[in-house]
Amino acid sequence: MTEPPPSPSPAGALPEKVAVIGAGAIGGGWAALCASAGWPVSIYDTNSQAVEQAMEEIPRRARALIALDRATSGIVERGLLELSQAKSLLQAVRESDWVIESIHEDLGAKQRLLESIEQVAEPRAIVTSSSSGLAPNDLFGRLLQRTRCLVAHPLNPPELLPLVELVPATETDPKAIERAAAFLHALGRMPIVLRKAVPGYVIGRVAAAVWRECIDLVLSGVINVEDLDRAVSLGPGLGWAAAGPHLTYHLGAGSGGVTIFLQHLLTSFEAWWGDLAKWERLDPSQQRALIAAIEKAYEGKDTLRAARDRRLGAILRALEQARTT
Amino acid sequence: MTEPPPSPSPAGALPEKVAVIGAGAIGGGWAALCASAGWPVSIYDTNSQAVEQAMEEIPRRARALIALDRATSGIVERGLLELSQAKSLLQAVRESDWVIESIHEDLGAKQRLLESIEQVAEPRAIVTSSSSGLAPNDLFGRLLQRTRCLVAHPLNPPELLPLVELVPATETDPKAIERAAAFLHALGRMPIVLRKAVPGYVIGRVAAAVWRECIDLVLSGVINVEDLDRAVSLGPGLGWAAAGPHLTYHLGAGSGGVTIFLQHLLTSFEAWWGDLAKWERLDPSQQRALIAAIEKAYEGKDTLRAARDRRLGAILRALEQARTT
Repeated sequence: MTEPPPSPSPAGALPEKVAVIGAGAIGGGWAALCASAGWPVSIYDTNSQAVEQAMEEIPRRARALIALDRATSGIVERGLLELSQAKSLLQAVRESDWVIESIHEDLGAKQRLLESIEQVAEPRAIVTSSSSGLAPNDLFGRLLQRTRCLVAHPLNPPELLPLVELVPATETDPKAIERAAAFLHALGRMPIVLRKAVPGYVIGRVAAAVWRECIDLVLSGVINVEDLDRAVSLGPGLGWAAAGPHLTYHLGAGSGGVTIFLQHLLTSFEAWWGDLAKWERLDPSQQRALIAAIEKAYEGKDTLRAARDRRLGAILRALEQARTT
Repeated sequence: MTEPPPSPSPAGALPEKVAVIGAGAIGGGWAALCASAGWPVSIYDTNSQAVEQAMEEIPRRARALIALDRATSGIVERGLLELSQAKSLLQAVRESDWVIESIHEDLGAKQRLLESIEQVAEPRAIVTSSSSGLAPNDLFGRLLQRTRCLVAHPLNPPELLPLVELVPATETDPKAIERAAAFLHALGRMPIVLRKAVPGYVIGRVAAAVWRECIDLVLSGVINVEDLDRAVSLGPGLGWAAAGPHLTYHLGAGSGGVTIFLQHLLTSFEAWWGDLAKWERLDPSQQRALIAAIEKAYEGKDTLRAARDRRLGAILRALEQARTT
């Protein structure tokens, strides 16, 4: 008597097992998120010390979601019971419906890992890369089964920030995008599918534009690190959390919409665009100055991280309540 | 019997009356905010239709703060009883401790108005400009009494977003900065004092950096307007509302701080910096395309604004609760 061949998961089915390859901050976040949804997760990293550390961190991060109202205790504990540390890539990937690549941002290393994953992944599995900006065609171009691969780029921490950028390669099957989106929706994430891949995708580019200007404002002595952070948080950051940039300006000039906004303020924006930081490299002395300024401003990262996560949890709850009232 | 001469307000005293000159979206917001704190406000605009409209809008905006838990009904109604429409600049400015200039962003027009304000303002009054990016030395340079003048740039809507940039001119008296900061703190605002004036100050520059990249991503077909706004809102916007950019990256690489973050990701950021939008002008065809895309995405501005304001109110409450827990 032979076993029937494995049938592909029906559309919409949730993964029976998730493999997370790479046990850093992002991999640990994916694992905490999936475990908090009650999903079995197997995590693997060639650096066994990193996995050991992640196996301590993941339960802490998953349980922290309970206090933040982002998960319920029973489901988290069920997921954590099935969280396992794989001894090999094969052990992690075998029987997984979703393989998440989350090693450091190095094209060659990711390409080699994705080739190894391909050799052991189940035919039914989708494979996503957590890259924050590499071209999907470069990441997946050497593989034989390219149709099931795409980028699913989370923000940090992945278990708290809902946005995930989905960036398909040229040959990605739309069904793979749909399955990734379904998995992410089931995890309470908000996937956004890009129509074209550009370096840094959307989030990396917007973040890079902001950070360059913020670094420049600090290094040129306009404002210190803490005031800059406070200004962005309590000013445009708050505004953008409530409405994206285009909607913000569409609402910015009374009932006239963006047409009137541009009539009033395009001249100002053009003056600023011409004056913004333009540099493309941060030289070693600038790096040292930036690091010194940030370290002087912020001590006690664990406390700061816990407070940040509390604020994130509170904002997420608030946005959910504002949607339903 | 002669009346005693008016004595200057003691340091820390709240204004007995505020004059708002310019009855657009920003002036109306300042008036709603001050009225919601129970302060008497006199508003003036050379465009009498704009003032008529503002006199309808301001009570609505001030009362909306009650529903959003940003103000209490009794104080708002007390303030609204003392909200008045001035028939002249003199009538608005007379007896005011704080004169807020909030007309459109035009250097010449603001300079002329500030000269007229100077002629009628009380000796004890401070004068702030709501400019979003003009040089304070240009704004106030022609005045005789420059020590009491500075920029106090709010975000939009001023009655909801807490951040206010204070940008002194070279000759601004530190005591005037302190008084402006004290008024703003009393209004529940978070003033940040810039150390140097640069075009666009801090907020305008960061916003311009973001919007240029966001416009570029939409016009180049990477993402549509709504997905872009959603991506920024539920991704970096949310993140920045909880922690500014520098703190975000200091927490972004586990316990290693920004040093390790830069080791891992500076190469990526440098690649993105080199690839970001560089244009400094939005030509007429790009303007038309942008306006069409935004108008197609968003209909019903009043509903969208109310929903945005509900989200802002909810986030502000959440951040206050997260601070105290």
